[in-house]
Amino acid sequence: MQPNVTEIARAVAQELQAIRSNVSLEQALWLAEQVKAKAKEFGFPCVVAVSDNAARPVLVECMDGAYIASYDVAFNKAFTVVSLKMSTSDLKPLAQPGGSLYGIQFTNQGKIVIFGGGEPLKNAAGQVIGGLGVSGGSEEQDTALAAYGKQVFEQKYF
Amino acid sequence: MQPNVTEIARAVAQELQAIRSNVSLEQALWLAEQVKAKAKEFGFPCVVAVSDNAARPVLVECMDGAYIASYDVAFNKAFTVVSLKMSTSDLKPLAQPGGSLYGIQFTNQGKIVIFGGGEPLKNAAGQVIGGLGVSGGSEEQDTALAAYGKQVFEQKYF
Amino acid sequence: MQPNVTEIARAVAQELQAIRSNVSLEQALWLAEQVKAKAKEFGFPCVVAVSDNAARPVLVECMDGAYIASYDVAFNKAFTVVSLKMSTSDLKPLAQPGGSLYGIQFTNQGKIVIFGGGEPLKNAAGQVIGGLGVSGGSEEQDTALAAYGKQVFEQKYF
Amino acid sequence: MQPNVTEIARAVAQELQAIRSNVSLEQALWLAEQVKAKAKEFGFPCVVAVSDNAARPVLVECMDGAYIASYDVAFNKAFTVVSLKMSTSDLKPLAQPGGSLYGIQFTNQGKIVIFGGGEPLKNAAGQVIGGLGVSGGSEEQDTALAAYGKQVFEQKYF
Repeated sequence: MQPNVTEIARAVAQELQAIRSNVSLEQALWLAEQVKAKAKEFGFPCVVAVSDNAARPVLVECMDGAYIASYDVAFNKAFTVVSLKMSTSDLKPLAQPGGSLYGIQFTNQGKIVIFGGGEPLKNAAGQVIGGLGVSGGSEEQDTALAAYGKQVFEQKYF
Repeated sequence: MQPNVTEIARAVAQELQAIRSNVSLEQALWLAEQVKAKAKEFGFPCVVAVSDNAARPVLVECMDGAYIASYDVAFNKAFTVVSLKMSTSDLKPLAQPGGSLYGIQFTNQGKIVIFGGGEPLKNAAGQVIGGLGVSGGSEEQDTALAAYGKQVFEQKYF
Repeated sequence: MQPNVTEIARAVAQELQAIRSNVSLEQALWLAEQVKAKAKEFGFPCVVAVSDNAARPVLVECMDGAYIASYDVAFNKAFTVVSLKMSTSDLKPLAQPGGSLYGIQFTNQGKIVIFGGGEPLKNAAGQVIGGLGVSGGSEEQDTALAAYGKQVFEQKYF
Repeated sequence: MQPNVTEIARAVAQELQAIRSNVSLEQALWLAEQVKAKAKEFGFPCVVAVSDNAARPVLVECMDGAYIASYDVAFNKAFTVVSLKMSTSDLKPLAQPGGSLYGIQFTNQGKIVIFGGGEPLKNAAGQVIGGLGVSGGSEEQDTALAAYGKQVFEQKYF
């Protein structure tokens, strides 16, 4: 029996969705709003960076009073998670001396960050469509903040 | 006769305004909204960057479809206009071969941009409190866009 | 009952003090004098660097015979302490392999120094208004020298 | 007839003088004082940089309110004049398109400055013993300021 038109349309739409999936500036701005609100709850200013599915920057916002050093850190976390398709906290143990990827922090002009606060953003099909990097608190706080951002983003858009 | 409390308060408020003046993230987000709306009128996507009074980044937004190269260009325009306290279009003639500052484009790790699209943002006292850099259209378009942004910013906040 | 003019003036002066606070060149030169005198007591030449509240350089002095490498080290210590708002000796344990910020030494174009000899300079309100970086002796000596500089600076100016 | 002891001693002293000649930090601080006083007369703040006979930095002072971009410019002027043993204004015409050294501005990691404001400092024997770089005004002003600094320095010390 042949698939009916509705079924075909749905499959095509899903495929298109997956292909098209890339973080838009509008989505990034929405995500930054959520992360900033949570950072205020946590009680510290931060830098929020969002990259697209090619690890190129989409948005960087520096909350008033955030660390100057946080710009590069957040920006590079957003790069790291897309370029390696994993969170920076998952990368962390691999990049310690003796770890399987020890040295990767030196291979990409200092753009690979190996501590928590970066999360890849995925669509419904599980594809990495962008990245989130945050910096401003302790590693635990940044890790929690990025995980929160990833969760609300994927919940809203997929 | 002594000044009354109201007079003192007003004078102090003006002084504080001048001293404190630095672009906030909230102001930068508002400015980016205006610039993006105008860029849509012009018919092209762009990157908008805002720096603070120390030439540190506050905000970078990359409209969907903007040139990948525009990130560095807009970012560095926002640096240039604060670090030299002039627009990139005013710097342009000075930096041509034979010009008085020819060569400045090589002296600061490639962060000095010498074509239009960057404008310093000033407060009522005429102090540079931040910078705007845009990139995405022709030089004429970027120059117009930055000039527009500077105008609406200074009109709204001062 | 309304506050009198003196009370208003005093409150305003305090507020201005906190807002305006940034290391001046005159203060930096005074601080360098103290640090150099102490380094002579310790028996080694050093490089003294002072940055402002935006981590931009204010002063760098290289005592005759100081290590050539000390210029970058002292300069970057002065950057690090303002951009992260902590001393380089406090950062040190966090940046060791396995530490929560291990890897931060690679994220900011090599400008983050993770051993002793850098101290943030704070005003009476506890705000970071600049940074001091010294390099020339052993880590213990540089750490002691920077701590000494921080102490005399804050004692004199706040 | 043999030279007498006095004559020998004098020749040796001169030779030692020439060999030893290098800008000291004390001399650099004195020179910076003169240049800053003259810049105040001119009416603008500037950055003053002094390098030694190996083109290594000895001193950098950033007057309050100087351009942020001036740090790199002054620093690199002080490098340029020692590393090429000529003033940056003498280098300027050679480095224009078509000039004999056109391209030198790209060969040394952006450290060669090709507009006025840098002067080599020479001892009585005509040897380059250090360099002065200033940045803060127009090219004409910086050129005049550096020439003034060179003149008072050589007058005082040789």
